[in-house]
Amino acid sequence: MKLKNLVGDRFKERPSDCVIDSHAFTVRGGYIKYVANGIYSLYPPMKRITKKIEQIIREEMDAIDGQEVLFPVALPGSLWEESGRFESVGEELLRFKDRNGSQMVLGMTHEEAAVHLVREYGQTYTKYPFMIYQIQTKFRDEARPRAGLIRVREFTMKDAYSFHTSQEDLERYYDICYKAYNRIFQRAGVPEVIAVQSDSGMMGGSISHEYMLLADAGEDSIVICEECGYRANMEAAANCVDNSGTLPMGELEKVYTPNCKTIDEVTNYLGASVESSCKAVMYQKNMTDEYVIVFVRGDYEVNETKLVNYLGEKVHPAEITEESGIVPGFTGPYDMKCDCTVIYDVSLKGMENMVAGANEVDYHYKGLNLARDCGEVEYVDVSKIQNGGICPCCGKKTIQVKRGIEVGNIFQLGTKYSASMGMTYTDAEGNEKTPIMGCYGIGVGRLAASVCEARHDENGPIWPISIAPWQVHLCCMRVDQEECKQAADELYTKLQNAGVEVIYDDRDVRAGAMFADADLLGVPVRVVVGPKNLKNHQIELVTRDKSISKLVDVDHAVSEIQAVINALFEEINAKVEPRM
Amino acid sequence: MKLKNLVGDRFKERPSDCVIDSHAFTVRGGYIKYVANGIYSLYPPMKRITKKIEQIIREEMDAIDGQEVLFPVALPGSLWEESGRFESVGEELLRFKDRNGSQMVLGMTHEEAAVHLVREYGQTYTKYPFMIYQIQTKFRDEARPRAGLIRVREFTMKDAYSFHTSQEDLERYYDICYKAYNRIFQRAGVPEVIAVQSDSGMMGGSISHEYMLLADAGEDSIVICEECGYRANMEAAANCVDNSGTLPMGELEKVYTPNCKTIDEVTNYLGASVESSCKAVMYQKNMTDEYVIVFVRGDYEVNETKLVNYLGEKVHPAEITEESGIVPGFTGPYDMKCDCTVIYDVSLKGMENMVAGANEVDYHYKGLNLARDCGEVEYVDVSKIQNGGICPCCGKKTIQVKRGIEVGNIFQLGTKYSASMGMTYTDAEGNEKTPIMGCYGIGVGRLAASVCEARHDENGPIWPISIAPWQVHLCCMRVDQEECKQAADELYTKLQNAGVEVIYDDRDVRAGAMFADADLLGVPVRVVVGPKNLKNHQIELVTRDKSISKLVDVDHAVSEIQAVINALFEEINAKVEPRM
Repeated sequence: MKLKNLVGDRFKERPSDCVIDSHAFTVRGGYIKYVANGIYSLYPPMKRITKKIEQIIREEMDAIDGQEVLFPVALPGSLWEESGRFESVGEELLRFKDRNGSQMVLGMTHEEAAVHLVREYGQTYTKYPFMIYQIQTKFRDEARPRAGLIRVREFTMKDAYSFHTSQEDLERYYDICYKAYNRIFQRAGVPEVIAVQSDSGMMGGSISHEYMLLADAGEDSIVICEECGYRANMEAAANCVDNSGTLPMGELEKVYTPNCKTIDEVTNYLGASVESSCKAVMYQKNMTDEYVIVFVRGDYEVNETKLVNYLGEKVHPAEITEESGIVPGFTGPYDMKCDCTVIYDVSLKGMENMVAGANEVDYHYKGLNLARDCGEVEYVDVSKIQNGGICPCCGKKTIQVKRGIEVGNIFQLGTKYSASMGMTYTDAEGNEKTPIMGCYGIGVGRLAASVCEARHDENGPIWPISIAPWQVHLCCMRVDQEECKQAADELYTKLQNAGVEVIYDDRDVRAGAMFADADLLGVPVRVVVGPKNLKNHQIELVTRDKSISKLVDVDHAVSEIQAVINALFEEINAKVEPRM
Repeated sequence: MKLKNLVGDRFKERPSDCVIDSHAFTVRGGYIKYVANGIYSLYPPMKRITKKIEQIIREEMDAIDGQEVLFPVALPGSLWEESGRFESVGEELLRFKDRNGSQMVLGMTHEEAAVHLVREYGQTYTKYPFMIYQIQTKFRDEARPRAGLIRVREFTMKDAYSFHTSQEDLERYYDICYKAYNRIFQRAGVPEVIAVQSDSGMMGGSISHEYMLLADAGEDSIVICEECGYRANMEAAANCVDNSGTLPMGELEKVYTPNCKTIDEVTNYLGASVESSCKAVMYQKNMTDEYVIVFVRGDYEVNETKLVNYLGEKVHPAEITEESGIVPGFTGPYDMKCDCTVIYDVSLKGMENMVAGANEVDYHYKGLNLARDCGEVEYVDVSKIQNGGICPCCGKKTIQVKRGIEVGNIFQLGTKYSASMGMTYTDAEGNEKTPIMGCYGIGVGRLAASVCEARHDENGPIWPISIAPWQVHLCCMRVDQEECKQAADELYTKLQNAGVEVIYDDRDVRAGAMFADADLLGVPVRVVVGPKNLKNHQIELVTRDKSISKLVDVDHAVSEIQAVINALFEEINAKVEPRM
């Protein structure tokens, strides 16, 4: 198509509300338009990108025997009551009533709908295994949408659900899907996406992985050991702390520490190291407001997801009242005067000699030894692993914590949904059994934005050829010169006839404006038809990533362009692992 | 794929809640599953059908310079306030609040979102004309969903919006779109879909057409004149009534008509014809409860849409109170004692001598002449045209009223949305102008169901090859016989390698069950591999519509099957008009 007809504006100024580059470029390049908080319309270039991503996903899902279906966006609340999630999921589940007063929800994920669809079909073991998937709009009423399409409230997602008669079969299929996901990201031009072990959270189930695209702008932290290949998200990464070299046992001594309420203040005042201190972090349970005090080594942080998973219920930061008996800033494990749940983090294990609060204003203890002074305690892992920490897999101090964007996830759900929703099948022996499920998601728009985040320069996106809105961006530098215009027009026609996807800029604008627009559209192959090169019967052929730049004869232009397109596809395909 | 792996059940019994055939077949054939009132999930066969329909639509929209975009499903209420529709649209617009209490709606149509998307882009005349479209989920909180996918609350729709700088340009494009729509229905295998003039209703604008598939199960009435080709829906068809041959003027006479409250009772009692009577139909305005009395010839019915369009406000059937002064059953135009809006329908025009209520219990007038007795009155067309009525176009008594399913519509919107939402552009002379819009919709799921309604026999759907879930249904009649199984397996592989879409039934079931399932899946080409024909080195090739049935040599099976597929496509393409 012609650029002058393309709906959407491109502009130079970075919008002030765009914190990350992909957000700025997708707004500046006429890809998305803000409609409401976390809700966007897509202009034609982004729609073209997401359609290509969807097609890649579809092909890979079909290749692993997935069957495409379609679930409703608006679901009856009763379906979510069956699984228990109508109650258990927070405000991100949008609940509303229809004209008849019936309770409805907007689907944010479709496990319930999937079980509903196949509950009758899957009544005998001969029907298993099977996988169904859809590509569709979802709504998640996020408290804090951000970063353009990276974290929105309404989004297009591919969600797949597999059903099995044994854990072994689920694991077999999970591996197949794991590899299909690798292929999807590889085909989309981001082979560096990595799978990391994750915490399953509200989805239920046990083993799960998140697919992460490493990016400084990412909001997730990923734990990586380059030594052994261990990869996990923060929630799933066990924090291993070696306290073997810490201070030897000493005598318990209460010391005056006036106004020393923070770990830094007290360790500075006492001349002790932060690593030898015990920090108290206070929460309250959401349901009962009961206090939860977490003791953790002074230099570690509590991971709230780990804490919630351990407690089995949600918590919020504590509001300390006078009646609680808690002495904020001076709380420690010895001589506690409050009634609350106490948790000792694994980072304290093996510490012989600690500084900790004395549960009395302006006093701390030195020389505290948990085993000796508080009796044997249970250590629980509720803290965050740190950069340079010990790899839970190989045991070396090789952990790197990086930022990433979650572009997909896969879960071994187990029977959480099938059991709660009463889905059963008869096995070969006539026994009634509950099927075992897996689920597998990819956010389409988020993947598009993530690719932009991973593939751009200072002027705009550099779209991989496999998902680029067009393959070729054709620029006619002088529409006012007949020869130039005619050559460009002819090439446009020939490329279209050859089945090449071309966006053609035949506007009467300056070269600077023309190239700025081309950079913002990020089309991988740029073809420039200008008077100077035409004198030599040549046109210029440049790739957006600057890896190729050459002059080619006008007569061979189409075949040369096709060769470059093929080479770019080859470059991507070379990094795609074979199907299982 | 193999039929035994296809998710979804097929069964014989017609569900009791299925009134129309397409509903019954789509449930019995494993195409759709009821989730909630007017909300369905789609099984793989229906998803395959709708994907093909969507692709046809996409190709035709792209061919008329449409640019595909995506609007949100959940829209801010403020956008609908801009156009005034937040207030004016009834309960079918689902309104809800998000977690922050912001007013939201579920998009039932996207004029507001379309204007929002291009309001900045379209600020200068050089950008015009342009058309954007999307294929996406919509939600309309229908009071009475019915008939499976024919009338649902959640549905996938293609909606397109064009923007123009003159009425002439809109009309030029409207004609192009009109033809593109013809092509879509022709390519989908239902060339008998007709465009009828329609009333624009809540969409605003003037000229509009509905695309109707004639079907007894349809809920819309269509007015057709086969003499001159006039076609309109009931709301849009002018009711022409010829009263030239009715009774000559007589004397006005009040007569005692005890207990004669209906037209039939009074005309029987008086020995008069129904055609000579004047009926009163009572409404109240929704806003003020003011009474509206419509006088119409006894044998005609009021069309409420025409009435609402004339009044410019909504009405409901009247509740007659004693204070109203209305005498139900005996209301007539002469000597009225109530304060209300009175409307005289065109069906009364030219009647010289009528029977009508006397506004007094148990009394009517005979010999009533409106002009003489009530003064000159204005006649308004608020009645329904009837079968055998006068064609408003050619004037002959050739009107046929038929039933149809609306599968698409196109509207000349004018400036209703652009003006109310403040969209303007600067014209070549520097003047600020308001763009003129058109909008164009097709319900994807409804079209699929309508094709089933138009193309089925007593055993199931007969899908046109262009939208069929698969092209070939391959049946292996005896999987327990090695030769038969091997021949069918080989053919399955060869067909797949040839790019043919095959569903392969290699289950060990009786022929009856196998063919019943094949009938329900409605795949256009059936290939039967059985021991008897194999002895002659032959297989059976039958089309679902029974137009072709032959035995072909195993060695030529693939090419013969491909030839039949091509012939079926040719049959459809022969009825597709060329692009403009």
